[in-house]
Parts: sequence; C-alpha cells; structure tokens
Amino acid sequence: MNKSSKIAIIGGGSWATAIAKILMENVAEINWYMRNPDTIEQFKELGHNPRYITSAEFDIDKINFSDNIDEVVTNSDIIIFAIPSAFLKNALKNLTVSIKNKFVVSAIKGIVPDENMIIGEFFIEKYNVPINNIGVISGPCHAEEVALERLSYLTISCQETKKARALALKLECAYIKTTISDDIYGTEYAAVLKNVIAIASGICHGLRYGDNFQAVLISNAIQEIKRFVDTVHPITRDIKSSAYLGDLLVTCYSQFSRNRTFGTMIGKGYSVKFAQLEMHMIAEGYYAVSCIKEINDTYKVHMPITMAVYNILYEKISPAMEIKLLTEDLR
Amino acid sequence: MNKSSKIAIIGGGSWATAIAKILMENVAEINWYMRNPDTIEQFKELGHNPRYITSAEFDIDKINFSDNIDEVVTNSDIIIFAIPSAFLKNALKNLTVSIKNKFVVSAIKGIVPDENMIIGEFFIEKYNVPINNIGVISGPCHAEEVALERLSYLTISCQETKKARALALKLECAYIKTTISDDIYGTEYAAVLKNVIAIASGICHGLRYGDNFQAVLISNAIQEIKRFVDTVHPITRDIKSSAYLGDLLVTCYSQFSRNRTFGTMIGKGYSVKFAQLEMHMIAEGYYAVSCIKEINDTYKVHMPITMAVYNILYEKISPAMEIKLLTEDLR
Repeated sequence: MNKSSKIAIIGGGSWATAIAKILMENVAEINWYMRNPDTIEQFKELGHNPRYITSAEFDIDKINFSDNIDEVVTNSDIIIFAIPSAFLKNALKNLTVSIKNKFVVSAIKGIVPDENMIIGEFFIEKYNVPINNIGVISGPCHAEEVALERLSYLTISCQETKKARALALKLECAYIKTTISDDIYGTEYAAVLKNVIAIASGICHGLRYGDNFQAVLISNAIQEIKRFVDTVHPITRDIKSSAYLGDLLVTCYSQFSRNRTFGTMIGKGYSVKFAQLEMHMIAEGYYAVSCIKEINDTYKVHMPITMAVYNILYEKISPAMEIKLLTEDLR
Repeated sequence: MNKSSKIAIIGGGSWATAIAKILMENVAEINWYMRNPDTIEQFKELGHNPRYITSAEFDIDKINFSDNIDEVVTNSDIIIFAIPSAFLKNALKNLTVSIKNKFVVSAIKGIVPDENMIIGEFFIEKYNVPINNIGVISGPCHAEEVALERLSYLTISCQETKKARALALKLECAYIKTTISDDIYGTEYAAVLKNVIAIASGICHGLRYGDNFQAVLISNAIQEIKRFVDTVHPITRDIKSSAYLGDLLVTCYSQFSRNRTFGTMIGKGYSVKFAQLEMHMIAEGYYAVSCIKEINDTYKVHMPITMAVYNILYEKISPAMEIKLLTEDLR
C-alpha cells in the first residue's frame, strides 16, 4: 500500500457516501461499487447520492462507478466495505476474484448473519485474508454530520500500524481527525454492541424514562461492553476512548441514530415489523443482538442490557416489564 | 445515627427541594433551613417551593422550617448541605453551634471560594468534623426529574460504610435507587469537574460543533476527570460508574443542565455577565473552574478541557480560537 493505492468503496448507503466524501478530499479518484445500476445512473445525473445525505455534492468525474464487484475489487488495493452486515453475503455472492492480497477494511457496524462473526473475522475465516490485511474504521461519526462538514474523529485500526496510518492519512481533512489503533476485534465488537445499547436507550426513552436514568443506563452499558470485549479479545485497551465510549455516546444521544429511533418506537409499543417498515432503514442492532446473544452463550459474560433488548425483540417480553427488571440490575 | 435520626436540609434551591421531596417519602419530619423568611412563608402558603421545581407538592405539617441555622442544626443529627458553594460561607456565618458530632452531608457540587477546598474537606479543616462524619450525595440526578418522579439513582458516599447505608435507606423510594461508596473525595471532585465539562460542552454546542464532536469531547473529559481524581486522591475506583461517568453524562447531555446552557450562551458570543443575568441561576462550573485551576497548579495534571474553559471565561480568549486549539489535543 502506498500513496497511489487505489481505493474502493463497497456500498451505496449513507456511511459509504460519507466515507467517499471524506476520501475525495485527498485522493484523485475512487472506485465505487453499488449493487443497483439505476442508483449509479441517478448519482451521475444528480452529482450526489439520490437517497442518502443528498447535500454532499461529488465531482463525479473522479468516481469510477460500477455494479460489477469483481471489476471494482480487481482495480483496487484498499477495499472499504460499508454496507449493512445483513446484506454483506449477498453482495459478496458475485465476487469471484481473490481479496486476500487487498487491504480489506470494515466500515460496517454489525455481525455477519448465520456466521456470528464480526466482519474482520469473517474475511479472515471465509476469504483467507491475513489478519494484518484487515482494517476497521470506527466513529464516533454520524454520516449526516460528515455531510455538514462538522468536525469528527475517526479511529483506524489494523494490527499492522503502518497500514492503519497510511489509510488514516487518506481520511484526514479539514473536518476529520484520525487516531490509530491495533484493536480490530475490540473496535468492531464495541461498534456492534453500541447499536444494541442504542436500542435499549430508545426503548427506555419510549417508556418515558428520563435523562437521569439514561445516564445510569449508559454508564452501565460501557461497563458491559468492556466486560464483553475484554473477555472475547483480552488485550490492553482504554474503553473510555472515542472509538468505544465516544461511539456509544453519539449513537445513544444523537437524534440521527436509527437504532435509538427504532428502540423508541418499540418502547412506545409499536411492533418490530411496523417500526422497521416505518423507518425505511435497517437498525443493525436488531440483528446484532441475536448474534451477540449466541456468541455469548460460549463466553457467558454478564450482559443484562443486551439480554433485555434480546428478550424484548425476540422473546416478545413486554418492554415495560423487561426494563423494570433491568433497573434492578443497574447501579 | 439510627432510624429516628433527625434530618436537616440547608438551602432552598431546586436540589435542596428535590432532596426534601425524596426524604419525605420515608421520614416523619424534616428540619429545613432557608435564609429568607419570606420564602418560608410563601412555601407554607403554597405547599411548594415558590421558586424551584414548583410541581413538587409538600405536606408542610411535616416540615419544621426555620431561618435560624443554629436551631436547625441543634435539632438534627444529619445535616444535608444543598446550597450553591458560592453562598456556603455566607450561610455558615450565623452558625455558632458545633457540627462536629453531626453527620455532615454535602449535596453541593462545587468548591468553597477562596479556600479552594471541596465541601467535605472544608468541613473537616474549618469545622473539625471527623472524616468519618462526612457524607456526599451524588447523582446522576437533575432535580427537575425528581419532581416528575422519574427513576433516578443516587450514590451515597461515606468512609464509614454503615453511615452511608443508613442515609441511603432514607433516600430509597419508588423512584430513587441508591448505591454506596467510600469515595468522598472522588465523588465530590467528579461532581465539580462535570460542571466545568458541561460548560465546555455548551460552548462547543454554541459554536455549532455537532454530536460527533461532543462524543469525542466527553470521552476525553472522563479520562481527564480520572487523571485528576486519581492524582488528588489515589484509591481504586471505577470512573465508569454512575456517580462519575453518569453524572457527567446527565450534565452534558440534559436540557436541564444550567452549566451547559451557560456554556452555550458563551459559545454563541454572549458575555459572562449577560449569560449570568439571563439565567437567574448560578452556573457552579464558572466558579469551580478557577478553583480547580488553582488546585491543579500544585498537581499539574494534564487538563486541556478544563484549561480551555478557564481561558475562555477568565482570560477572555475567544471561544472559537480556544476550542479550535483544544480539538488538536483530543483524540
């Protein structure tokens, strides 16, 4: 990987679009895979993504769009995956070329369904990508604020520090600052768990618990996240760093968080199906909580908040009753 | 101290009123000192505090009001101080009886001006109260949500655990859960610092920094608070607990936080004087930051956020410039 490394973005959602915007502050061109050729056509016509963060304008002459994932991967050295984890396997169906010599970067906050693996793990196990070729981009960073060019901080993780640093350099600009980390597992798991916690936070909000309680919930949540990631991948990390605690805070407290919005609807009494239809967006925490629950069947970490969300969404326990029980477990 | 210990509240503000409301769920009567006899008369007539959290109704037959602090202290075993720290010395001017055999509890989040001491320390040094007779009540808990009876958690600290537990029992009710701690210094300092951070948070909000940045600011802030309290009073504590992190979160994210509101006005360009007049309330962090700065001249802990607030409020550095500099220090 060097200065002229070619970068691909896989995905056409809001976070993919935000990363593209950031990259284009620094690089001469990007390769961009989107599944739907119509979306590509509309993007080219409009000069912006037709559906997400539409205020972010692009110089489309610098973008090589394609709906052929093989072509995009072949022409790139760094592949940034930024699609909902629920759709990852589907997107990879048409991939026939090897990615094991690429720098494979996850900007996905989710777990691969059925596999119960975080994204990096999945590429290592199923696509033979060496661990040093796995990268992770974490927030705290809502795409909507990138569109507004509001100052945000990204953490770029890779066990090979110089790769993380090289990618970080391509992402730094007037409104983005970056930090380097070697914790690819911890940052991914924390990013997954924060979506589950944001659902919990929304549920409590929907049930009319107030700010005092939210503060207790989130203090307990970061302890729960620490217990889990320290068990699953025991290395030295400061869970109070932006990539862990900050990412949790922005997701739980921001009006832009779809997981929190989803949770609020559940707390107000809407069904899962209705909430999903109403939002037109995937709340990744919905899938994540069931995967985390299965993964934790092995580790048996005490995760009262995660389990409360699981019980409400999958076991159909009444939100009011489940959260009442949870309040006994917090301090 | 036993079940029939008589409790006094010193102060007539919103937090004093919230604590009185909580106590009266459990105890038969309280002694309540307020400086202003007119306020007492109005309180008796209306059945609620005439100025603060007016929706909280009281059975005034169970309250022994007095504007004579000696009388209130003499008739009580537990003295809960809940007045702005800026007014504490003035309130104590008329105190001529000893309080050293009382359980002296600070519900103040501030530092005694001129003395540069937290409240517990001040009573130990200046009023010869033994350290085991010092208690602290900490949040996360905005008075406004107590008035609404929304579930909140309090942490009660005393080096003598059984005293903390006895007081906690008097505070637990349908909408209040309690935790015990022995960290009287850490909880007080954290409660003081969170007001300073809330001002920083407000300033950044006023300058139009967004949610992504706030999450980074607060992640860095809890690390700054940990560095400070671990240096000033090095004992084992989990800074992610509700009494530290939770208290910080509720103050920085809640619409009820007057320190954050004060900061927002400063960030928007109002003068300190105008902001104070406009709010009709003391933003404790304003006084605290200058005291903390002086205390830290001894300890020399790296406190970039605290120093940024100090520079803006006392050195008249432009908020935009100072926060821009601060962003370089965060990660």
